[in-house]
Amino acid sequence: MKLWDKGISIDKKIEAFTVGNDREIDIHIAKYDIQASVAHAKMLEKIRIISSEELQQLLEGLEELQLQVTNGTFVIESQFEDSHSKIEFELTKKYGDVGKKIHTARSRNDQVLVALQLFYKENLQLIIADTKTFFDTLLALAETHKEALLPGYTHLQVAMPSSFGLWFSAYAELLIDDVYVLNAALKTVDQNPLGSAAGYGSSFPIDRNFTTQELGFSTLKYNVVAAQMSRGKSERTISAALGSLCNTLSRFAMDICLYMSQNFDFITFPDELTTGSSIMPHKKNPDVFELIRGKCNKIQALQTEMILITNNLPSGYHRDFQLLKENIIAAFEDVKDILAIFNHSIQQVRVKDIDLTNEKYQYLFTVDSINNLVVDGVSFRDAYQKIGGEIQDGTYKPDMSKKHTHVGSIHNLCLDAIRAKFPT
Amino acid sequence: MKLWDKGISIDKKIEAFTVGNDREIDIHIAKYDIQASVAHAKMLEKIRIISSEELQQLLEGLEELQLQVTNGTFVIESQFEDSHSKIEFELTKKYGDVGKKIHTARSRNDQVLVALQLFYKENLQLIIADTKTFFDTLLALAETHKEALLPGYTHLQVAMPSSFGLWFSAYAELLIDDVYVLNAALKTVDQNPLGSAAGYGSSFPIDRNFTTQELGFSTLKYNVVAAQMSRGKSERTISAALGSLCNTLSRFAMDICLYMSQNFDFITFPDELTTGSSIMPHKKNPDVFELIRGKCNKIQALQTEMILITNNLPSGYHRDFQLLKENIIAAFEDVKDILAIFNHSIQQVRVKDIDLTNEKYQYLFTVDSINNLVVDGVSFRDAYQKIGGEIQDGTYKPDMSKKHTHVGSIHNLCLDAIRAKFPT
Amino acid sequence: MKLWDKGISIDKKIEAFTVGNDREIDIHIAKYDIQASVAHAKMLEKIRIISSEELQQLLEGLEELQLQVTNGTFVIESQFEDSHSKIEFELTKKYGDVGKKIHTARSRNDQVLVALQLFYKENLQLIIADTKTFFDTLLALAETHKEALLPGYTHLQVAMPSSFGLWFSAYAELLIDDVYVLNAALKTVDQNPLGSAAGYGSSFPIDRNFTTQELGFSTLKYNVVAAQMSRGKSERTISAALGSLCNTLSRFAMDICLYMSQNFDFITFPDELTTGSSIMPHKKNPDVFELIRGKCNKIQALQTEMILITNNLPSGYHRDFQLLKENIIAAFEDVKDILAIFNHSIQQVRVKDIDLTNEKYQYLFTVDSINNLVVDGVSFRDAYQKIGGEIQDGTYKPDMSKKHTHVGSIHNLCLDAIRAKFPT
Amino acid sequence: MKLWDKGISIDKKIEAFTVGNDREIDIHIAKYDIQASVAHAKMLEKIRIISSEELQQLLEGLEELQLQVTNGTFVIESQFEDSHSKIEFELTKKYGDVGKKIHTARSRNDQVLVALQLFYKENLQLIIADTKTFFDTLLALAETHKEALLPGYTHLQVAMPSSFGLWFSAYAELLIDDVYVLNAALKTVDQNPLGSAAGYGSSFPIDRNFTTQELGFSTLKYNVVAAQMSRGKSERTISAALGSLCNTLSRFAMDICLYMSQNFDFITFPDELTTGSSIMPHKKNPDVFELIRGKCNKIQALQTEMILITNNLPSGYHRDFQLLKENIIAAFEDVKDILAIFNHSIQQVRVKDIDLTNEKYQYLFTVDSINNLVVDGVSFRDAYQKIGGEIQDGTYKPDMSKKHTHVGSIHNLCLDAIRAKFPT
Repeated sequence: MKLWDKGISIDKKIEAFTVGNDREIDIHIAKYDIQASVAHAKMLEKIRIISSEELQQLLEGLEELQLQVTNGTFVIESQFEDSHSKIEFELTKKYGDVGKKIHTARSRNDQVLVALQLFYKENLQLIIADTKTFFDTLLALAETHKEALLPGYTHLQVAMPSSFGLWFSAYAELLIDDVYVLNAALKTVDQNPLGSAAGYGSSFPIDRNFTTQELGFSTLKYNVVAAQMSRGKSERTISAALGSLCNTLSRFAMDICLYMSQNFDFITFPDELTTGSSIMPHKKNPDVFELIRGKCNKIQALQTEMILITNNLPSGYHRDFQLLKENIIAAFEDVKDILAIFNHSIQQVRVKDIDLTNEKYQYLFTVDSINNLVVDGVSFRDAYQKIGGEIQDGTYKPDMSKKHTHVGSIHNLCLDAIRAKFPT
Repeated sequence: MKLWDKGISIDKKIEAFTVGNDREIDIHIAKYDIQASVAHAKMLEKIRIISSEELQQLLEGLEELQLQVTNGTFVIESQFEDSHSKIEFELTKKYGDVGKKIHTARSRNDQVLVALQLFYKENLQLIIADTKTFFDTLLALAETHKEALLPGYTHLQVAMPSSFGLWFSAYAELLIDDVYVLNAALKTVDQNPLGSAAGYGSSFPIDRNFTTQELGFSTLKYNVVAAQMSRGKSERTISAALGSLCNTLSRFAMDICLYMSQNFDFITFPDELTTGSSIMPHKKNPDVFELIRGKCNKIQALQTEMILITNNLPSGYHRDFQLLKENIIAAFEDVKDILAIFNHSIQQVRVKDIDLTNEKYQYLFTVDSINNLVVDGVSFRDAYQKIGGEIQDGTYKPDMSKKHTHVGSIHNLCLDAIRAKFPT
Repeated sequence: MKLWDKGISIDKKIEAFTVGNDREIDIHIAKYDIQASVAHAKMLEKIRIISSEELQQLLEGLEELQLQVTNGTFVIESQFEDSHSKIEFELTKKYGDVGKKIHTARSRNDQVLVALQLFYKENLQLIIADTKTFFDTLLALAETHKEALLPGYTHLQVAMPSSFGLWFSAYAELLIDDVYVLNAALKTVDQNPLGSAAGYGSSFPIDRNFTTQELGFSTLKYNVVAAQMSRGKSERTISAALGSLCNTLSRFAMDICLYMSQNFDFITFPDELTTGSSIMPHKKNPDVFELIRGKCNKIQALQTEMILITNNLPSGYHRDFQLLKENIIAAFEDVKDILAIFNHSIQQVRVKDIDLTNEKYQYLFTVDSINNLVVDGVSFRDAYQKIGGEIQDGTYKPDMSKKHTHVGSIHNLCLDAIRAKFPT
Repeated sequence: MKLWDKGISIDKKIEAFTVGNDREIDIHIAKYDIQASVAHAKMLEKIRIISSEELQQLLEGLEELQLQVTNGTFVIESQFEDSHSKIEFELTKKYGDVGKKIHTARSRNDQVLVALQLFYKENLQLIIADTKTFFDTLLALAETHKEALLPGYTHLQVAMPSSFGLWFSAYAELLIDDVYVLNAALKTVDQNPLGSAAGYGSSFPIDRNFTTQELGFSTLKYNVVAAQMSRGKSERTISAALGSLCNTLSRFAMDICLYMSQNFDFITFPDELTTGSSIMPHKKNPDVFELIRGKCNKIQALQTEMILITNNLPSGYHRDFQLLKENIIAAFEDVKDILAIFNHSIQQVRVKDIDLTNEKYQYLFTVDSINNLVVDGVSFRDAYQKIGGEIQDGTYKPDMSKKHTHVGSIHNLCLDAIRAKFPT
C-alpha cells in the first residue's frame, strides 16, 4: 500500500530499489511517529478538522500501536513502504474514514522529520547522560590512582613525569568539550518542524504552537522551508557531535591498547576481558578496546557521508534524504553500546606499579632539575644549557622528589573543579 | 565455540560487543572461505602434513558446505563467532582429528584475508562487466539521439549548443576512466596472501606458489608482513575505485533529475518509473534517480571510513580491521544494484524535442557567429567585441545552421573510437 | 636560532622540511603570542620568579613588538623557526638575561596552544557577529519581498507555492543553528591552557587562575594533559562549526546559481556583480556565488583533514600538530571574506516577477484544492484521489487565492520571532 | 586585463574575491600553458586559420615566455587575472592582431584543462620515479638487515618473530600497489582535452589528433563534454592515488616513531636528524618522521575536498573548479618533498640489536613450538591446547632455532621477486 497510489502499477524493480531497507530502519522511529501522530490528531481536533469522537478513535488506535512497539510486536509487513503507511493503514482498517483523516494538514516529509527529531532528541539526551556516567567513573579512577606515577611522553619519547590521576581525569575533562557540542546538537533538533508539510506549509489553519507544547519541543522551527531544510543539516550536526565524543573515546582506547603492550606494560585487565588467538596460545588481546577505537573511528567518518548525501542539492525535499537515516540511527545505537562497554571495562583496569628508576625513564626529571637551578637564580636558558651538558657528559642525576603544586598538575588534580564544569 | 578457547569464561557483554554482526556479514564470504580452505588442504597434502585420505575427507566435507552455501542453507549459528569457526566445527564434528588439522599452517588472519580478496576480486570483475553493459547502453542511446540538440550550459547559464548524442556518450567515455581505476584495484587484490598466517608467516614448509595457482591469483603478495598490511589498504583502494564509478553515476543522475524538472523539461520517463507524493496528486517524482545519486554519494564517503579505521595504526593486525568488512561488502552489493537499475531505467528515457528558438536559448549560437567573422578574416578578439556589441544593442541574430565537424564534437561523435577505448 | 639548540648541527634538508611555512603562518598568531607572553610575565612577577623591574622591561619589549604587529612591520626572519623564537630573541637582544627568563615555567607547547586559542576565540566571535549581520540582511530582504511568490519544489519538481519571503528567511533561521554550533566551539576554546607546559605542567608554583583572568578566559582547562590534548580537538570542533555555517551558505549559493539560470530566471544581479566568458560575449556568469559555494564546500572538507592529522595518535604532543595551523587559519580568513562578500552581494539581488499562471507551474496549487474539499467535509485521502483524477482528465483548475495563515507559512512569516531566536 | 572585458566596470570587491590567489598558483602551470599554446598555434596554422608567418611570430613569443618561466623571471602582474590573460597580453603587445588570434578555436576552459593535465602527467611520472628510488632503498635496507630479528606484534601485543628484512621489504612491496593506482591516475590524464573549448567544442575544423600527437598524449578524450567533465574527476582520481602512496608512507613513519620510543628502542637515527625541545634538554625527537606522517595524513584528506567541491554539480563548467587547483598542486609538491626527505633519512637508520630472550618477548616462539608438535603427529588444535597449558603452568620453554623457509617468510624474503613485480 502506498499513500500516493495513483492506480498506475509501478515497475517492480524500481519499487524494490526505492523502498530499500526502510522497513527495518523504521522500527526505530515508529515510537516517535506515533507520538507525533497523537499530537497532530489532538491539534486537528483543536482546530475542528476532526471531531472529539474521531480524536478518541485515533488516540485509541495509536495507543494500541504504541503498545505493540513497546512489546516488540509491531511489524511492518512487506506490503507497506514504511512505518507511516503501516500506521495509516491500521487506523483506516479499524476506523474507516476517520483513519484517512489523520494525514490532513501534514505530509510524509514533516511526519518523518518530526519523528526523526524526536528520536534524535531523546537519544542525544541518553548519550549525554551516559557520558556523565563515564565521566564520573573516570574521575573516581583518577582519585583512586592519583598517587601512581606514569611516564609522560611527547613525540612518543619519554618526556616528563605524569600520573594515572592526570591520565584518567584528562579524558574526563575532555568529555566536557564533547558535551558542549552534543548540547548544541540537541538545540538544533529541539525545534518543532511539524506543520511544514512538504516543506511549504499548509493552507489549513494549523496550530503549530500547540503541537510544539504537546511534543515538549523548546521552540519551533518557524519557517516551513527552514524546517524542511533542517533534514540533512541536523544529521550533519549530530554526526559531528557524536564524532567529537568518539574522538575522545577512540584516543583513550588507543592509549589503553598501547599501555597494555608488553613494551609499555602500564596497565592490564582481567583475563575475562581479553580474547585469544587462533594460533598463538599465549595471547590475551585487548579486542574490546580495539573495537571501541575502530567503531569510534568509523563514526567519525559518518559526517562525510551525511555531507556528501546532501551537499549541493538545491532547496526542497529530495529522496536522497531517505538515505541519511540508516547510518545515523545505527551510530546512535553504537555510541550507546560503546559508552556502556567502556564504562563497564575501564572499571576493571589494573594499574601497574611502574619503576621510574629504570634506565629508559632516567630523563623524565630533567625539567624539574632545570627548575631547581632557576629557583637558585640561574636564568631558564642557562639552566637548560647546564643540564643539557650534564646529560651529554653522563653526569646527570635526577631529583624525583619534586612536587607539582599548581592548579591542574600531578599533585593538585582539581577533580572537584572539573566535576563542577560538567554542563548541566 | 571459539578457535582460541583457553578454558577461561569470557565476559558475556564483552563477547556480544566483540562478535558484533560478524555472522550476518560472513554469509557473504563463506563461499570464498571454503574455496581457500580447499586450496589450503590440497597444499597441506602436497607438503605431507596430511595424508591423501585425510585430504579426501576434508574435500568432501568442504564440498558439502559449499553446496549449502549455493543452496542458501548455510547457517552460522549463534554459538559460532564467524564462518571460520563454523566451518572448522563442522569438519571436526564429521571427521574428528582430521577436521582439527585444517587450521595447520594458517591463522584466522590470512584465512579472512584470502576469503575477502577472493570476494573482492570476483565482485570487481562483475562490476567491470556491468559497467561495460551500461557503457554499451549509453553509446546506443547516443547513436539513437545523435541528432537531438540540447542547450549546453556553463555556470548553469545557457552557453553553446550541445546534443543528446554528446550527453549520453560523454558519460560513456567517463566510465572508461573509472574502469582504469577499477582495474588498478583489481590488481591490488589479485595477489595471494594465503600463507602469511598471523602476519609473520609459518615455520611449516608451506607451498605458497601452489595455492596461488590453485586459487587463480595472478601473483602472490610475497612478503608476509605486506600481505597482512594489505588488509585495510585494499579496502581503501577499492572504496576509492567504487567511489570513482559512483561519482560518474551520481553526476549523471543529477543531470537527469535537473533535466526532468519542469523548468528544463528535456527528458521524461514512463509513469511506471516515477513515484508519487503523499499529499500532491500531480507528482511524478524521479525517486529512482535521486536514490541512485544518493547511494552513489554515500559510497563516495566510504573511503573516508576505510581510512579512518586503519590510519595511524602501527604495523601488525588489529581487531579494528574486522569493522572494514561490513560497509565495503554492502557497497559492492549496492553498486551492482545501482548499475542494474540504472541500465534498466535509462533505456526507457524519452528525449524531448527542445525548441532552441525559444528566447531563453537565443545566445546559444554567439560563438558560432564569432567564428563566422573569424573565418572572414577578423581576429578572434575583435569578432568577440563585435558580437558582444550586437547583443547589447539587441541586434544580434543567431545562425543555427553551423555544423561542428572536429573529432568529438556534436556532428562527429566518434562513438566507435570511444567504444574501442574501453579497456579489455 | 632555535630555542632548543644543543650545539649539534642539524641536517639542512631536515631543517627546511621541518620548519615548513611556519614563518608565514605565525604572522597570524604573533599578536596573541605577545598577549599571552604579557600575562605570563605578569604572573612570573606575581610568584616572584622575576622582579618588578624585570617585568617592566619585558612589558616594554613586548609592547614594542605588539606595535610592530599592529603596524604590519613585524617580520620573522629566516634565521628563526617561528614567531616564538623571534620574540624571545628580541627580548634577549634588548634586555639580556631578563629576556631569557620569559620562557620560565612554560613550554613552546602551551605557548603555541594559548596563542592559537586566543586567535580562535577572537575570530569565532568575529564570525558570529558577521553571521548576525548577514542574518539581519536576510530578514530585511524577507520583509521587502514577502509578497513575491516563488514556485516551491520537491524532487526538483514543481510542488507547492512558496515565496521570496519564505526563501530569504529560511536561510536566516538556519543560520541560528549554525550559531549554536559556533557558540559550542567558542566554549571549547574559552578555557586557559597556559601552564600546561609540555603537557605535564610545571614544578614552579605558577598561578594559572591569574593568567586565566588576565587573558579573559571564562575558565581554565584544569588538567594539564587535557589542555595539551585539546590541540587538534579544538581544531576539529572549530572546523565542524565553520563547516556547518558553510553548509548553509553553500546551499544558499546553489539556489542562487540555479535561480539565475535562464531556465528558472527567478532572480538577477547588476552586471557589475557578474563576470564574462573568454569566448561567449553574452555571458553574465554568477562567479561570485559559485566561488562562495566552492569555498564553502572546501571548508566543509576541512574537518576530515583535522581528524586525519590527529587520529589514532597516543596522548602527548606530536609534531604532526604543527600541520593543523595552516588550513584552519586560512579557513577563518576565508569565512570572514565569504560572509562579507555574500552580505555585500545579496543586497543587490533583483527579484523577478514570476508568472505562476505559466503552464509549467499549473499544479502548484493542487494541495490547496484538496484542502478546500477537506474543509467541505471530504476525508483527506478521498480528496487526494478526486483532485488526482481531475489532473489525469485534464479538468483540474487551480485556486490561487488561498492564504496560508499558520505560524511560519507564506503569509505569516514570523520574522520577529525568528529574530528573537538568534542566540545572544 | 580580462579576456572577457565588456566595458562594464566590475565591482572591486567582487573582482578581488573571484581572482583569489590564482596568480600565485598559475606560476606552477605557466610552463604547460605555453607548451599547449605552441601546439594549438601549430594546429591553427595547419588548418589555415593563421599563416605560417603568424605562427612564427607566436612561436617566437611563446618561446621567449617559456624562457622566462625556466629562468624564474616570469611574473603575473596584478592587472592580470591569471597566466592565460598574461600570455595573451604579451603576445598581443608584441605582435598586435596576431596575438589576438591565439585564442581562436579554444576557450579558457580547455586551455586551463590541458595545462593542468600536462602538469599532472609530468608530475605523476616524477612521483612514480621517486617511488621507485625509495622502493630500491627499502629493498637494499632489507638485504642489509635481513638477519636482524624484530618482535612481530598483533593487537600491539608481542606475537611472533619478525625481522628488519621483512619490515623494510614489506613497505617496499606495498609501494607496488600504490604504483598500480598512480598508473591508473596517469592514464586518466594522458588524454588530450584540447579542442573541447568551453565544453561543447568548436565550429572551427580543428585537428585534435594533431595536437594530441604534438603534446605527447597517448589518446584523446574524444567527447568534448567528457573532456570538460574530467575537470574535477581527474583531481579526485589523482588525490586518491597520492593518498594511497601517502597511506603507505604515513604508516611506515608511524612504525618508525614507535620503534624510536624508549619503550621499543628498535631503531635510532643520528642526532643531526632529530630535533630538540624548548624545555627538555635530553630530547632527540623524530620530528622529521612525525611531519612525514602528518603531511601524508593531510594529503589523504585531500580527496574529500576534491569530491566536495565538485559533487552534485550538473554537467558543464562551474567556477568552483578554479578552487581545485590550489591544494592539488601543493600536494604534488609535498609528495615529491616527502619522498626525497624520507629516502634521504631512512638510509641513515641504525638498527639496534634486540634481545629476544628478554622476558617480555618470551612467547614470540609459541607457534613454532606448536608446529614442532604437529610435525611429530599431534593435530594442530591439540598442540595448541598443550602449549597453552605449558604457558599457564609456567613450564613453557621457547625453541628459537626454527627457520622459516617458505616464500616471503623471514628466511626467504624473495627480494628479487618483489623487485621484478614493480610495474614498468
